[in-house]
Amino acid sequence: MELSPRGTKMGGLSGIRTIMEDIGIAASDSSGGTWLNLSPGNPADISEVTDTWRGLQQEALAARFPEVSGRYGPSRGSEGLVDAIVRYFNRRYGWSITPRNVLVGTGCQMLAFMATTIFTGTYPDGPRHLVLPSVPDYTGYQGLNLEAGGIVGVAPGVEHLEGRLFRYTFDLEAVRRQPSMGMMLLSSPGNPTGRSIEPDALAGLIQIAEERDVPLFIDHAYGDPFPSVAQDLVEPPLHPNVINGFTLSKAGLPGERIGFVIGPEEAVDVLVSFTANSHLHAPQLIQATVERALNTGVIDTLTTEVVKPYYRRKRLVAEKLLHEILPDSVDWRLHSTEGGMFCWLWIDHDWFDDLEMYEALKRKKVFVVPGRHFFVPPFDSPFLAEHATRCMRLSLSPDESVLAEGIRRFAEALEEMRAAR
Amino acid sequence: MELSPRGTKMGGLSGIRTIMEDIGIAASDSSGGTWLNLSPGNPADISEVTDTWRGLQQEALAARFPEVSGRYGPSRGSEGLVDAIVRYFNRRYGWSITPRNVLVGTGCQMLAFMATTIFTGTYPDGPRHLVLPSVPDYTGYQGLNLEAGGIVGVAPGVEHLEGRLFRYTFDLEAVRRQPSMGMMLLSSPGNPTGRSIEPDALAGLIQIAEERDVPLFIDHAYGDPFPSVAQDLVEPPLHPNVINGFTLSKAGLPGERIGFVIGPEEAVDVLVSFTANSHLHAPQLIQATVERALNTGVIDTLTTEVVKPYYRRKRLVAEKLLHEILPDSVDWRLHSTEGGMFCWLWIDHDWFDDLEMYEALKRKKVFVVPGRHFFVPPFDSPFLAEHATRCMRLSLSPDESVLAEGIRRFAEALEEMRAAR
Repeated sequence: MELSPRGTKMGGLSGIRTIMEDIGIAASDSSGGTWLNLSPGNPADISEVTDTWRGLQQEALAARFPEVSGRYGPSRGSEGLVDAIVRYFNRRYGWSITPRNVLVGTGCQMLAFMATTIFTGTYPDGPRHLVLPSVPDYTGYQGLNLEAGGIVGVAPGVEHLEGRLFRYTFDLEAVRRQPSMGMMLLSSPGNPTGRSIEPDALAGLIQIAEERDVPLFIDHAYGDPFPSVAQDLVEPPLHPNVINGFTLSKAGLPGERIGFVIGPEEAVDVLVSFTANSHLHAPQLIQATVERALNTGVIDTLTTEVVKPYYRRKRLVAEKLLHEILPDSVDWRLHSTEGGMFCWLWIDHDWFDDLEMYEALKRKKVFVVPGRHFFVPPFDSPFLAEHATRCMRLSLSPDESVLAEGIRRFAEALEEMRAAR
Repeated sequence: MELSPRGTKMGGLSGIRTIMEDIGIAASDSSGGTWLNLSPGNPADISEVTDTWRGLQQEALAARFPEVSGRYGPSRGSEGLVDAIVRYFNRRYGWSITPRNVLVGTGCQMLAFMATTIFTGTYPDGPRHLVLPSVPDYTGYQGLNLEAGGIVGVAPGVEHLEGRLFRYTFDLEAVRRQPSMGMMLLSSPGNPTGRSIEPDALAGLIQIAEERDVPLFIDHAYGDPFPSVAQDLVEPPLHPNVINGFTLSKAGLPGERIGFVIGPEEAVDVLVSFTANSHLHAPQLIQATVERALNTGVIDTLTTEVVKPYYRRKRLVAEKLLHEILPDSVDWRLHSTEGGMFCWLWIDHDWFDDLEMYEALKRKKVFVVPGRHFFVPPFDSPFLAEHATRCMRLSLSPDESVLAEGIRRFAEALEEMRAAR
């Protein structure tokens, strides 16, 4: 049975999904020895987080099961949750949004998929692309668009900071030069970098979105108001060209696929209809649970007292381990961070190759994520041609002992790779 | 912000969604008087059903919350549920499917949306359509495809049975004549008709699917093995060209959006990747709940002892009420049924118009669903041109007293409409 071109596109797996399958196979490997997984995008197991959500879910189940699970519901999201979102954001940011600015969905990825589908692709005047205004960015974005070659990643600038720290900058002029832009999409704080967008860069991207009359979709998966694994430099912007995406995944519910967008009424209305047409609405018991978390303020306690301090501490631990363990004589650099759940390493040597390192570490029973998957091929800028294969992502979610031993084996592999060239 | 053509398509609401919004508005109408809703696609509130699912969900929550809700999972579905599905169907039908034949999704609608996306649309040799081999069929199918005009409904034949009963037949030659077919899709037992596909018609459709090398997607939402609101005439067919869609919605969990497909490995693999790319995976706590229902056999008890007898009784009640209450002198007909949750009425007079009846009944505070939404425009066959506006769907879900009073007001409206012409 022949697939349509978009079927072929959607039937392909991005590089990182292939790696997740690798990990799945390793997990069932019984050949002995423990695998160290420094790759997970999964948030850490934190018992206060689990206990809180389980309690809220139990309450929702006891109080509201027949009305929420036993009935179809509104495509925009259950009234109770939509109202809770409206109140929460209006109170927190002094906004005056209404339910028409909100859509609850089966995760922020699905919401971004729908937005990409309605704002990119073939237009009467030609193709319009999904533009990532500064790569590296979340590798999953490359699976969103229905057309092969429908996504463009703009190369960043680099700022060297004190010690081994560096930071990517936005090249706004390069973004502005993109000939066929349908939507811009970025994560902030970024996966993999941990960078939060600065006020100037945000203003610049919004200006470009206005000029081109396209949406800027900002994925706040790690940012404010929850899980707030971030020192966000700006508030989520309320603007006619901005769609803000939020998720409960990093606040502890990744397995339940629940997220929402806040944006301009006209765009959100279209996404509501898309939802109705494609899958009716998001599951409702978890909606009742999240409603409870917002209305009681439990989400803020969890964020401020547990999740945010947890990752801040883990980041400090990881930085310390990297400095202690990695060889001084290797020119390794670390992206400075305002948040997120990762360390983004740049090994600036021509003998380094991220995929070779991935394989070398697999032989040492360690999983990390090769950097190239966070860039969008082809790597045709002079900077990317060299840079995109010299980065690795380490997760802050594993236990400290796993982090330490993983970094130790990474140091070994680095020495071996250097010696072999 | 300009939408792409597919954005415009997906931003439109099918007729029946507009009606659902009507109902939403009516629900919050405080002008007095009770609305009688004979339109719901929602399954009936049955306390044994609710209690059973709530109990299973409580058990899953207590036993498995951290591992299922706190972690990302496999795109194909959680291992436990996929294995449970494989075992259940192999035992029940003597099959030997494996996990590679299965994909769990956020409802059967989403699974059908993905299948439509990968098997219809623009191909190198031209457009391929979603073909409904016998309309009327589920109105939601018309929202699935990304292209305006991308769906074709084939007019049925009609068989007159005893009394006021009639039955649509498949016009296989007309299906075979469709010039640009990408996928066939049908519900069996059908929404709205209650018809289960007969062995001969099924064999015919499968033969056409083989000849054209396209999939036949069969939506078993009301059928076997659950909720089994049906005397199914054939088992779900295991065939390289057939994708079987199942859902837990009509077995009591419509609000949780959980369904699955069983089909050929290659097609299912593509749908798994589509899932990974667009929304990662289906929510997992409800997957653990359904796994428990399958493994314990509770789903069969619920089906056989509660759900199936409930709708059989309601159907008999509704038929009796229709015969007692509707005017003898009106030429009304009722589609014979093997299952499903509806009565499908055909009022064979030129003075009858389904939309006018919808408005007339709204003035009497009754909701029904006009028939035309279950046909695919344009109604260009001689039969459909006349027939598509002369049908109405009544739901079997409301309480008997609501059904009786709703049918009484419908009879009144019929007399008034006839008198006015």
